Order: sequence, then structure tokens, then C-alpha cells
Amino acid sequence: MSYNTFGQMFRFTTWGESHGPALGVVVDGCPPGIAISPEVIQRDLDRRKPGQSRFTTQRREADEVKILSGVFEDERTDGLRTTGTPISLLIENTDQRSKDYGEIRDKYRPGHADFTYHQKYGLRDYRGGGRSSARETAARVAAGAVARLVIPEVRIRASLVQVGPHKIDYANFDWDQVDQNPFFCADAKAAAMWAEYLDGLRKSGDSVGAVIEVVAENVPVGWGAPIYGKLSADLASAMMSINAVKGVEIGAGMEAASLTGTANADQMRAGPDAPYFLSNSAGGILGGITNGDPVVVRFAVKPTSSILTPRQTVTTANEDTDIITKGRHDPCVGIRAVPIGEAMMAVTLADHFLRHRAQTGRPGGVGY
Amino acid sequence: MSYNTFGQMFRFTTWGESHGPALGVVVDGCPPGIAISPEVIQRDLDRRKPGQSRFTTQRREADEVKILSGVFEDERTDGLRTTGTPISLLIENTDQRSKDYGEIRDKYRPGHADFTYHQKYGLRDYRGGGRSSARETAARVAAGAVARLVIPEVRIRASLVQVGPHKIDYANFDWDQVDQNPFFCADAKAAAMWAEYLDGLRKSGDSVGAVIEVVAENVPVGWGAPIYGKLSADLASAMMSINAVKGVEIGAGMEAASLTGTANADQMRAGPDAPYFLSNSAGGILGGITNGDPVVVRFAVKPTSSILTPRQTVTTANEDTDIITKGRHDPCVGIRAVPIGEAMMAVTLADHFLRHRAQTGRPGGVGY
Amino acid sequence: MSYNTFGQMFRFTTWGESHGPALGVVVDGCPPGIAISPEVIQRDLDRRKPGQSRFTTQRREADEVKILSGVFEDERTDGLRTTGTPISLLIENTDQRSKDYGEIRDKYRPGHADFTYHQKYGLRDYRGGGRSSARETAARVAAGAVARLVIPEVRIRASLVQVGPHKIDYANFDWDQVDQNPFFCADAKAAAMWAEYLDGLRKSGDSVGAVIEVVAENVPVGWGAPIYGKLSADLASAMMSINAVKGVEIGAGMEAASLTGTANADQMRAGPDAPYFLSNSAGGILGGITNGDPVVVRFAVKPTSSILTPRQTVTTANEDTDIITKGRHDPCVGIRAVPIGEAMMAVTLADHFLRHRAQTGRPGGVGY
Amino acid sequence: MSYNTFGQMFRFTTWGESHGPALGVVVDGCPPGIAISPEVIQRDLDRRKPGQSRFTTQRREADEVKILSGVFEDERTDGLRTTGTPISLLIENTDQRSKDYGEIRDKYRPGHADFTYHQKYGLRDYRGGGRSSARETAARVAAGAVARLVIPEVRIRASLVQVGPHKIDYANFDWDQVDQNPFFCADAKAAAMWAEYLDGLRKSGDSVGAVIEVVAENVPVGWGAPIYGKLSADLASAMMSINAVKGVEIGAGMEAASLTGTANADQMRAGPDAPYFLSNSAGGILGGITNGDPVVVRFAVKPTSSILTPRQTVTTANEDTDIITKGRHDPCVGIRAVPIGEAMMAVTLADHFLRHRAQTGRPGGVGY
Repeated sequence: MSYNTFGQMFRFTTWGESHGPALGVVVDGCPPGIAISPEVIQRDLDRRKPGQSRFTTQRREADEVKILSGVFEDERTDGLRTTGTPISLLIENTDQRSKDYGEIRDKYRPGHADFTYHQKYGLRDYRGGGRSSARETAARVAAGAVARLVIPEVRIRASLVQVGPHKIDYANFDWDQVDQNPFFCADAKAAAMWAEYLDGLRKSGDSVGAVIEVVAENVPVGWGAPIYGKLSADLASAMMSINAVKGVEIGAGMEAASLTGTANADQMRAGPDAPYFLSNSAGGILGGITNGDPVVVRFAVKPTSSILTPRQTVTTANEDTDIITKGRHDPCVGIRAVPIGEAMMAVTLADHFLRHRAQTGRPGGVGY
Repeated sequence: MSYNTFGQMFRFTTWGESHGPALGVVVDGCPPGIAISPEVIQRDLDRRKPGQSRFTTQRREADEVKILSGVFEDERTDGLRTTGTPISLLIENTDQRSKDYGEIRDKYRPGHADFTYHQKYGLRDYRGGGRSSARETAARVAAGAVARLVIPEVRIRASLVQVGPHKIDYANFDWDQVDQNPFFCADAKAAAMWAEYLDGLRKSGDSVGAVIEVVAENVPVGWGAPIYGKLSADLASAMMSINAVKGVEIGAGMEAASLTGTANADQMRAGPDAPYFLSNSAGGILGGITNGDPVVVRFAVKPTSSILTPRQTVTTANEDTDIITKGRHDPCVGIRAVPIGEAMMAVTLADHFLRHRAQTGRPGGVGY
Repeated sequence: MSYNTFGQMFRFTTWGESHGPALGVVVDGCPPGIAISPEVIQRDLDRRKPGQSRFTTQRREADEVKILSGVFEDERTDGLRTTGTPISLLIENTDQRSKDYGEIRDKYRPGHADFTYHQKYGLRDYRGGGRSSARETAARVAAGAVARLVIPEVRIRASLVQVGPHKIDYANFDWDQVDQNPFFCADAKAAAMWAEYLDGLRKSGDSVGAVIEVVAENVPVGWGAPIYGKLSADLASAMMSINAVKGVEIGAGMEAASLTGTANADQMRAGPDAPYFLSNSAGGILGGITNGDPVVVRFAVKPTSSILTPRQTVTTANEDTDIITKGRHDPCVGIRAVPIGEAMMAVTLADHFLRHRAQTGRPGGVGY
Repeated sequence: MSYNTFGQMFRFTTWGESHGPALGVVVDGCPPGIAISPEVIQRDLDRRKPGQSRFTTQRREADEVKILSGVFEDERTDGLRTTGTPISLLIENTDQRSKDYGEIRDKYRPGHADFTYHQKYGLRDYRGGGRSSARETAARVAAGAVARLVIPEVRIRASLVQVGPHKIDYANFDWDQVDQNPFFCADAKAAAMWAEYLDGLRKSGDSVGAVIEVVAENVPVGWGAPIYGKLSADLASAMMSINAVKGVEIGAGMEAASLTGTANADQMRAGPDAPYFLSNSAGGILGGITNGDPVVVRFAVKPTSSILTPRQTVTTANEDTDIITKGRHDPCVGIRAVPIGEAMMAVTLADHFLRHRAQTGRPGGVGY
């Protein structure tokens, strides 16, 4: 029901602009008694942080998180724990360099939200895109780190699976590769190829889109809530809320359109304790509810709109002009979207875990 | 924030099962004073109604809507008008034929929600899928018909654009064709081909997926609410909540991944009154807010899971078995999803119209 | 977050007007597997039903409830059970007698919502007050009956404790008396006196207000959610949403203002299993969370605004006039508010039970 | 729908504990373009601030507010304006003195939320009550200051009208007196008497309750949303969410129970432009919707539970003990509740203004 809030039971509200003094998030509804620390949140933030390779923006932000509320260390217990009250997390902006962005005061950058924010609100914080900047995603990643603590048994990982027209080869897929290259890519070969491809693009002052695949393993049967709170619907909303995302797929995704019923519907067999599925076209979700298989989501990120190639645009006074978006930009924003996708998977699942527990009194499916 | 409710300001709650006595929807938050009639709602329901061609289920439902509340005809005014109070719409089920569905009491149908509902809730209404049946979409279409009345200046249309591997040719695209063939297809040639293709599939006891494209024209600049209430995010949730949907795209969609920044970002030129865009990769949405261009959404529907080909599955007692899903099923559920997609576009836009008006006091953008 | 919806996890949406064809409620979020029947809902509806004594309106309504969805009787189980999907309940209006209300088309009845609905919406269903009629409370009572099934261990009872200036004597308080007199009054002596008092008022064409006390026993420690979801805040909202209510008190209530700290704060002693309180000024709620003591709420209902004494008012054309509100009205609407207060207590507690279970995974407090 | 969030369209989320590093609030849904400054928020905070007279706690907090987001000063416009994005406000805690509160680690203070928080969450921040401390109200007052800017035409004022058994004399009521005495009391005579009365109480180590009356003038007709979003219901929730509040009244309030229909229902007369009411028993609200008269709300605050008189209680290990709550406490917390009541009136009205505007497209009633 809100604009800057996501989730129902595990809910978080983000705030802050690209060039304001700080940004942050308030996480509400987190269960009490969970061990937490700034370090565990920082770890996820560091993966999203800019400036970690030549393929991401050179803006320098420590993205150091402070926990301002919602945690307590009882002197008789072991370390910091959540108290069940709102967890306020704050990240200071330290490297704003406002002057880099002077020209965009008077011109709308194509592909950016400058025009629509200006039209909707009648004014806008034009410094670095203000609220529409991807800086906001730092706040989500912080919320996602808390969400992971709520569902520790669930393993959430993501990989870049496509850069421009170049897809990975799933035969090479190896989760261990993800942190071995600057692309969070599970296919080492593809990563090597992308490095070359992106170097070329960067030199030509251009950028390119990407696809990210997020997988959650060990999700219990039963999470998700028909009809308008289907897990698939909430995941679609979660991923589509990330800056620059234009498409979301669950399981077979858009490809499901091409399949026949015999090929698509995952057949079942009896297992020792419970039935299992012979395939996972469903992406782990049937009727909006998890079926015990890995939850698989992919989303497409459009190419960075800030490019060094001159583009036709208009001024805020509705006059024709051209613009070159200088500054420190990611040639492929999809790269840094990998940990963001993980975070959105984590918050969505944590929320549905709590919602499922509310209605049924159980953490997951009834089992056999 | 809810399970069976969609929307914030224009909100509706659906209820009802496939084989219960009735189904319905309560629309809350509708503005007062809008001329309404059962006929205008019936018109949309009739487009979704089963049994209209050999390509959809032969279940016979009149789907006749009754307005139970929220409207009033003052004897001094002209006809029925909304009063601003909840509009309750009811549709009776008349052709349930429960016996057709006996076998599914004890077996989980692959691709259906039987297993997940059973696991989540511990029991399920197995007659025709109960709540998970696409019968529910009649209620949404009714809500969508009301939503259209709230934003009469917006024109919402949809077309089937892919059946199985066969896509339409956009060069043939003609909205006037949509109601001239049983596929709601804007490309007459493609429709003719699909007819043959589906006849073959039907005979072989199989089914196939589809892609639907929904376009909203004349949407004012400014609708949509960052960050977690982006119009794109709400549309993704809206479409993904439809039965059998596995992918959602806005504008360039998944294809955006393959584009370069120079190709993707829509350039702008000064118009006589306001700027305009030279292309619409954005699908009418920038930063989650409408930019004045047509809002373009596509979604993929998986093939009907109920097929005559025997499939491996398990019993509710976790024993291996096979199942053939008899009964009256759509060989391509994507066909009837066309008016449903229109309805979900209508309710999402009506909601954002009201939300925009709340925050800004204006119906749309500031203009020039 | 809604207009015609109450609750977060146990949520219900009511619809319908006084003189429309029907009214109803959709209950969403109810746990699955709960034994339910039309009879158990009817029992509560019958207590609220008009025309049961000379002290309530003579409108004749059977108020017969139909369950349209959300329940299922598996042939292998025992009786009807909730399925976890929305429960739609419908009550037909049978005794509308529209002609009784002709005059109010053109005149605003003092104390009624005629003027404000007309101003807000620009039009109104003037027949019997339309949506603002206390007929709506039948729908809440139905929802309350479902809510009681969700928290069967909690005992919710209510008594009329004041009629006009005449309060009960708590020394005579006996719950067994409540169903022995037409006032739902736990003090038989007070009830006898009120009968005489109200007969006098009725003859003089006047009406009077009342206070209802609702008590929930056996509520576990821990329900309620700081800060803006305090159980006390939600109960205040619940009771204030009932027609004609002008004041709500928890525990000591308004009287708390007169108390000293030594008199007010309930002292504690160690019990065999857990601490207990020596008094209950708190009304069972501390910091918005239940403390294990009975939850005690009182609310004041203003006198029926529809009276036979002529009152000064204006026409819808803003001209002075007088009005006598004929028709079949309760001389003291507070009487029928007793089961309504119970229902609102039930729905609020059921909601907080589910919310507590979501966040903590436990039904109630940690215990000792 | 939330725990630490209030409102639907004008929504705010508070966070922070009594003895944490800071507390704050995120205001979401504020309209864009509103002139704002730290000073205008500080003004309201300063009125609530502790330590301003001998009748309030001597804790020293500057309560200095920082605006971290949601505002922007375009160099071409005049001063800071809201941008329509979330406004994050932060107040640092500077005078925590944790040692004052050592004893309460192991003992539950009667009348406080220590016991219930501990039971609900299994652990608690015992320093100064943690999240349950009235420190949280600073955040609401900050939100209230923003809300006032959203509805500048509405005048919201409050007065303490009762301290212990001593009520003001409404014949002496003079708004100009409110800021002339340490009690925010519109009756100078009563204020003088209370000073003496409270000095006595303070010396005896006791405390006392109070009643606050909040009045909003110049509220347009039409705000408020039936049925469960009645303005009266939301105001009841708003006031009951304030620490220590046990009763809420609208207009005639609990006294309405004693009135007859002839005395209670406010009669109407035709005015030059619109009808007006001859009295205001309704407190400006009919059917949950404003009628154009001042909105009048009263709420009762229980006596401060932290007193110097020894009280019986138990330890966290369920053993009998006594407690004296030392520290710096308000002898009558009701005094500082006056600006808090104003703030809650402001946020509730701002929210309903936006909600009304959403549904009707108008700021207020249709007029004549």
C-alpha cells in the first residue's frame, strides 16, 4: 500500500537521494532475538559497492552502515540481537561531487527519470538523479542482509547470465565462480569474454544491458499467498522495482509461451518422505505458492542510460538540445544488480515466511 | 498488502471457487458519481467468457453479473451512478459438473496448484482447482470494467502476439482485427495460422503457451510512485498474479538486455506544447512513472496444464501414479488471458490515477 | 489502510446498503482447517437482529447468512472447514419498505450522515441512510463469528453498563444475566429499571445513549504490536468505527486522568508459573500489548438520532425546514451495539493473534 | 497495516529507542513543492521538549532535528521545498545517562511495558523503556510539523483541560493562555491551581493523570472515509497510540451516553452559502466524515507510572520484590502530551485530506 515501503510483515522503507547527506532504511516486523551485527550487513553492502572493478562506476563510497535502532546487547547474553522493534540503518554519502552533474539541471537525460519526476512533482533534485538514482539500492541491500538472517536455512545466490547478446553456457555453471570474476558470473568463460566486450563498449562511450538469475534453494513448500499476494507476483514487483529493470521471469519465463503442455508441466514422483518434481519449469512456484524446488527468477536490466555518446533531448524549457552524460557511470548496470537481486529475493521470501507462519502457525508445508 | 485484494486507492477483493455457488468481487475506493450499468460490466465479462470458440473450454457459464451495492439511481438524475461506497459484484456458477473432476481428489495434477494448496493449507477444494482455478479471473474482469470507467480517457487494448513458437508480424498489426478472430489477435494472418496449429495440438491432446501484449494509450504523464510503488512494479505484480503467467515485460522487456545504451534510451524532441519521445523502448514508463507514451506490457502464459496426454504424478498419499486431465479445458489458456490482461492494466492505472491525484492534486503531469 | 476493510492478517471487507438487495462481508486471511457452519455465524447474527424486543427497531429482517466461498467439506472429513481462501458471507435484505424514508431525500436528518455523505460524494443513497445505516453492522457480526473460531480459547462477552444517566451496579454484575433481559445487561436490577425508563422515552418520542463494556478473558500475554499497531489503538479504532460511537475507553479509561500513580499502576506478584497483577486498571494492555489480564473496553453510543420530536434542519437546497424521523427506530441503539462490540473485539484479537504468530512463531507469550 | 507506521497516503514510520544513539521518522507520501525548513519542525519539537519547567522530566535533550532527505533547494527557487520523496528526520539522543536505569534490568516496573515487551519478544532494551519510552513521541511531533504544512488552512490547537480530578472551567477558556503557563492550559486560573496541586504530588513522590483536548478549526466538509477509515476511528487510533492514553472522546464523548436524542443531535440552519450547525455534540464528525464544524477530540493520559513511592512487583525471574522508579520523570505526563495530541491530529487530517482528494479530485466538500 505504499510508495517507499516493500513487504507486509517483513517491511522496509527506504529514503535518501544520490547527493543528499545520507540514505537509509527502516526495517519493521523483523522477528526478535536474531543475532545481528553491522559486519553481516556490511558484507552484502560491500558486494554492491561501486568502484570495485573497471566495469562499474568509479564513485567512491565506503557505504558504511550504522545500526541506529532495533538491536540490543543484553549484558547477560551473547552479542547484539534484534529486539522486534524497527531497525534503522543509515549510510552516509561521502563522495557526491555535485559539480559533475551541473548540466542535467536544465536538460532531461534520455532513459532517465528526470523528465517524469519533473512532470510528476513539478520540481526535482537533479543532482545525480536524486531519489531515482541507483544509490537507493544500497538501502535495499542492507534490508536484504537483515532478511537473510530471518530465513537462515534458505540459500540465496545470483549470477549474471547475459551481457548484451552474450548468454552464459549453463553447462559451465558453477556457483563457486561467482565471486571469482568482476561480473558475479557463474560461467568463467563467459566472464572472460564479457570483459573484452565491455572494454570495447566503454571505449566507444556506449553501454549495454544484462540478465541476472537469482536462485533460492531450500525454500519450504507452502510460502506464497493467493491470489494477489502470490509469491511470483511479489517477486515480479520486487525485481521490477529495481532501477532499469524491464522484464521479469519465473522458471521457464517468457519461454513458457513456446512450450507445449507435455513439455512444460513438471511431472512428479513419490519420494521417501514427500513427492518430488522431475523438472523445474515452474521455477519452484505453483499457483503462487512454493513447491519445494528452487525458486528461480531472472530479470533484465536495460543498458546504462548515462553514456558518452551525444543524444538528442530537450531542455526543461522544451527546447531541442543534445546531451553527453559525463560523470562516473557503470557501462553495464546489470553487474551491480546481482547482489540487489539477491536482496530483493531475500526480503520477499522473509516476508512470505512470516505471512505463511501467521496464517498456518507453521514455518512451511505440512510435510508427510 | 493483501492476499485477495489488489490496489491501494482503487482496491478490489475477489472471492469464490471454481465449483462453489458463486464468485465475486468488492471494489472499494471507486470515485462517486460515475455512470455505471450491469451492461457495461457484462460487455467485458462476455469477452472473457468460456465456450466462445473451439479453442477455449466448453464449460457453459453465462457469467451474468449482478451489482449488489455501491450504486444508486436518484430519481432526479439520469441512471445508475457510483456512490463512492463499495461496489459488490456477484457472478453465479451454473455449470459446475462436479463429477468431471473426481480423480483429482486423490492425485496432484502436474503444473497445477493442487500440490501446493494441499501442502500449504492441509486441505483443499479439489473441485476444478477450487480457488486456484482461472474462474477467479471473471471477478477481475468485472473489476477492470469498473476501472475503465474511472479513467475513461485512457484507451486499453490487448492482442495475442504469440502462440507457441509462432509470433505475429508487427507489420500486420491492426487493432481492428482483434475482435475479428477467436484469438483476439491484431494480425489476421497469424490468427489464421494459429487456428490450424491449435487444431493439431488439440487433436494430439496437448496444449501450448502464449504471449499477450497490452497497450494503454493516452495515459497522462506522471502516474506511478517511486520506489516500491513504481507503475512498472505494480503492473508486473498485476500480470504475474494472473493464472499461469511466468514472465512480464515492459517496453523492450527481456530484449533490453541485448541493447546498447545508444539504441535503448528513447531520445526526446521539443513538441509544440511538450516534449515527445522518438521511440518507446521504455514502454511509456521512466523511473516507474508514465512519460506520456503508450504503456506497453507483455506477459507470457504457460501452456494449459490440463491435457489429455498421460503424465507422471503422485497421489495425495505419496504414491506414484499417472493422470490424464479430462474435462473441458482450453488448449491455449493464453487466448482468454487477453481481456484479463486488459482488466489488470485498467485496475492498475485507475489505482495510480487516484494515487497521483492524492499526492499532487492534479489528474496528471504539470504540462507546459 | 482501507476504507471498508478492517484488520491486517485477519482482514474483512464489508459492503452493502440499508435498502439494497443484500449486504455482506469477505473475510480474508482466515487460517485453514477450522470447523465452521452457517449455524455458528447465524447464532451471533440472531443476537444482533432487529425486532427482538420493544426496545429495538421493528424492522423485520431474518438476517439469514449464506456462505458463498472459502469453505469445503471433503467427503473424507467431518463437516465444513475453512480452506484458507476468502470467506464470502451474504445476507439478503428482505424488509426494506423504501417508502418510509421518502422525506429524507430532500432533508438532512440531524445527527445522521446525510449531510456529510452528500457533501463528500455529491450524491447519496438516501434510502435508510444507505451505506451509513447500522445495517452494515450485520456484516461485522458475521465476521466476528468467524473470528471467534480463530481464537476459540478466548472468551468474549459484553454487557450494557449504562443507559442514559443510569449506570449498572458492578456489585450485581453477573454474566449469566446478559441473555436474560432485552438489554444484554449483566445487572438484572438495572435492566428492570431501564425498561421503565426507556418506555417513558419512547412514548415521548425521544431516545437516549448508552455505554457497552466488552471483556475478553483468557487472552495470552504478548498480543499487540507497538507503536501504531498497539492493541489498544486498534481496539479504539474498531469500536469508534461502530455507528454512533463517540468515546472509547480501555481499563480505567477517562477515569485514569483522575487517578494518582500509586492508585493506577497495577502491582505485580509472583505466581506459581508466571507473575500476576493485583488489579487491572490497565484493562489487560500495557504498552499496547496484552499482559494476560482480561482485556476490558468500554464505548459510548450516542442516542438514536432518528426521533419523533421535530428538529430544525435544512433541505438539500439549503433552506430551513423541520423534520420528524418516522420509521422503525431503536430508542436506544446502544442495546444492539452489545453483540457488535463483541464482534469488533473478536476480529481485533484474531488479527493480533495472527500478527503475533507471524513475528514470533508462537501463539502467545514466552511463559516462564 | 503496520506496526511503526501511521497513515495511508500521508504515512510516517518512526524508529528509535530511549537510550539508543538517535531516533527518527520517515514521512512518505508528502505532496511536493511545499516550503519547509528545519526551523518549522524544530518549533513544534521545542514545545514537546523535556525540562522546560519543574513539572516535566529534567532529562536534557536538545531534540535538534536534521532533515536527511526529501527536500531540495533549487538554486532558481526560493528556499527548501519538499520533493514528494520520503522525508527522513533524525534526532540524536544526547543525555541518556544509562546508569539511572540499572535496576529495571531485573525488575518489571508496574504500569510500564517492561513485562509485556519481555514476554512478547523474549528480550528487551531495558534502558529507559527502550522502544516503549515516550521519547518516541518526538518523532511523531516532527511528523506532525510536516503534516501541518500539508493542510496550512487548518488550525490545530490543544489545551490541557483536566489534571487529576481538577477540570478547567470552560467559561475561562482562552487559547491565548495556552503558551502563558507550563501546562499548555487555556484556563489561567486552573493552571495556577494545578501548579500548587502538582507541587504537592511531586513532593509526596506521586503522579497524576490528565485530559487533553485537541481542536482543529477550518476543516473542510467531507474528510473521512467510511466505514473502517472513519476519521473518528483513525483519530481514536491516533490518540490511543500515544503512550499512557486510556480513553478517547470525539465531541460529546462518553457523555453522549447520558444525553437524549433531542439534546444530542446537532440541529441545522440554512446559512448564506451553506448550512451550519447550531451546536457541536458531534465534534465535527458525522458518519465518520467532517461536517465543517471544529473537530474536537479529548484523550485521557494515565498518571506517570514511574514514581518514587515503593510498589510491589516481580523480578524477571518471577520473584516478589519492590521497586522505586528513580530517575527524571514527569509528575504528569499529560502535560507534554498536549503538543503530541496536536501532532496526531495534524497527521490524521493530512492523511484524510489526501485520501479525500484521491477519491473525489477535490480538496473538500462540494459546497453549494
